[in-house]
Amino acid sequence: MKTMYDKDRLIVVTNDDGYEAPGFAAAIEVAREFGRVVAVAPATPQSGRSQAITIYDPLFLRKHHSEPGLEIYSFSGTPVDCVKFTFDHMLKDVKVDLVISGINHGSNSTINVLYSGTMGAAIEGSFYGCPSVGLSLLDHSHDADFTDAKRYGREIIASVLSSEEQREQLCLNVNVPAVAEIKGVRVCRQCRGLWREDFFPHVDPNGRQYFWLTGDYTNYEPQAEDTDEWALANGYVSVVPIQIDLTSYRDMDYLNKILK
Amino acid sequence: MKTMYDKDRLIVVTNDDGYEAPGFAAAIEVAREFGRVVAVAPATPQSGRSQAITIYDPLFLRKHHSEPGLEIYSFSGTPVDCVKFTFDHMLKDVKVDLVISGINHGSNSTINVLYSGTMGAAIEGSFYGCPSVGLSLLDHSHDADFTDAKRYGREIIASVLSSEEQREQLCLNVNVPAVAEIKGVRVCRQCRGLWREDFFPHVDPNGRQYFWLTGDYTNYEPQAEDTDEWALANGYVSVVPIQIDLTSYRDMDYLNKILK
Repeated sequence: MKTMYDKDRLIVVTNDDGYEAPGFAAAIEVAREFGRVVAVAPATPQSGRSQAITIYDPLFLRKHHSEPGLEIYSFSGTPVDCVKFTFDHMLKDVKVDLVISGINHGSNSTINVLYSGTMGAAIEGSFYGCPSVGLSLLDHSHDADFTDAKRYGREIIASVLSSEEQREQLCLNVNVPAVAEIKGVRVCRQCRGLWREDFFPHVDPNGRQYFWLTGDYTNYEPQAEDTDEWALANGYVSVVPIQIDLTSYRDMDYLNKILK
Repeated sequence: MKTMYDKDRLIVVTNDDGYEAPGFAAAIEVAREFGRVVAVAPATPQSGRSQAITIYDPLFLRKHHSEPGLEIYSFSGTPVDCVKFTFDHMLKDVKVDLVISGINHGSNSTINVLYSGTMGAAIEGSFYGCPSVGLSLLDHSHDADFTDAKRYGREIIASVLSSEEQREQLCLNVNVPAVAEIKGVRVCRQCRGLWREDFFPHVDPNGRQYFWLTGDYTNYEPQAEDTDEWALANGYVSVVPIQIDLTSYRDMDYLNKILK
């Protein structure tokens, strides 16, 4: 791939694992191949924070690194707070060309898109008039190997940025399987499936019971070959385009009938 | 309206303003007209928590009230944690007939549905095989008058429970305007519009700068008469049916072309 660096291109990078996560450094590495980078990640891990915003707490910004073409900050809020603060305060009225959220340590496919802080930030990023890519690797470990995630992230971002047609509010949920050999990239729909949780009870030193949330995912359509879960299970990178209209149009006739 | 109480009907109530919010008591009051109630709300206000789940903190349960047909608890997590814990731990394998989330102090119409803890909980509730209703009043104040919200919530819930046809994963985003005279109920789609934020800077006693998030909403289609924002601005209760497939199907051809 020929270099796509453009000094006039500005890229915002964030994540939900926090500014110290190796996946954040990997995302910055990808972003720098395309342009100047402002990277603002949560000060602490924010996995599972969805599209949450912080209303009841003050928010603190810290600068961690600055060199020509790269600034790295942490912000004490959620991933969505990071995006809002970057666009609406730090870069007010500056044109941004791309948002990258990730690289997440762990999958954000299927229903996880609803709970994911990485995807919450990616969705928020798409509200600011530039393409937004959430990038996740199916490996939760701290020292995960991001080589493939960087490679495919780079290819997908290059395709989006060099496309003649630019779609409004384009937001991509990209997941990369952790397999020896990736077979390619598939455009997919979000798989139907849900989590059922186990709450593990423990007792603290003062005798109070508490619980840890943990759970198992059930795939409701394991045979369907057009889903992100199928693509990932079969060695492909999954790309699901995301929209934010939650209206269930198919229920409208029913409601108009029963609410008469 | 004739009584619809059924002692064999079980209703789960939650919210995002916390167990002490008057809107939670109002939702419990509505629920008790239909059946037995298990009410589990966050221990602290959780507005703006979206579909967030708690991964890094232990979760504590407290019982606040118990009488035949009514139990009230607080749980130290997010609204979605409350729903998951209620279904997957407290009521494991018990059939639940309805979830009510609210009554929220403030609007959850339009894009707010993505940020709202009330709607996060309502969406989560619909994953458990029963109808789920998020109910919000367009009045943020603590001592808001919930009379109309209770009345219309009751009517809509009665219609859903007495309907012969039961829809899979039915989830309703119901918003009630705070006006002198409500004109009726309208089934709507989610309005297009977005928030732009102002981050107010302050300085703490140690000289550290911090920020508070606050913002303004822009309606991108104020003329469209089929949206929730239009209904509310014109004195109607808005009912938006909610779905959870975020796939942007209209972007799939484009992506298949550029990612070739």
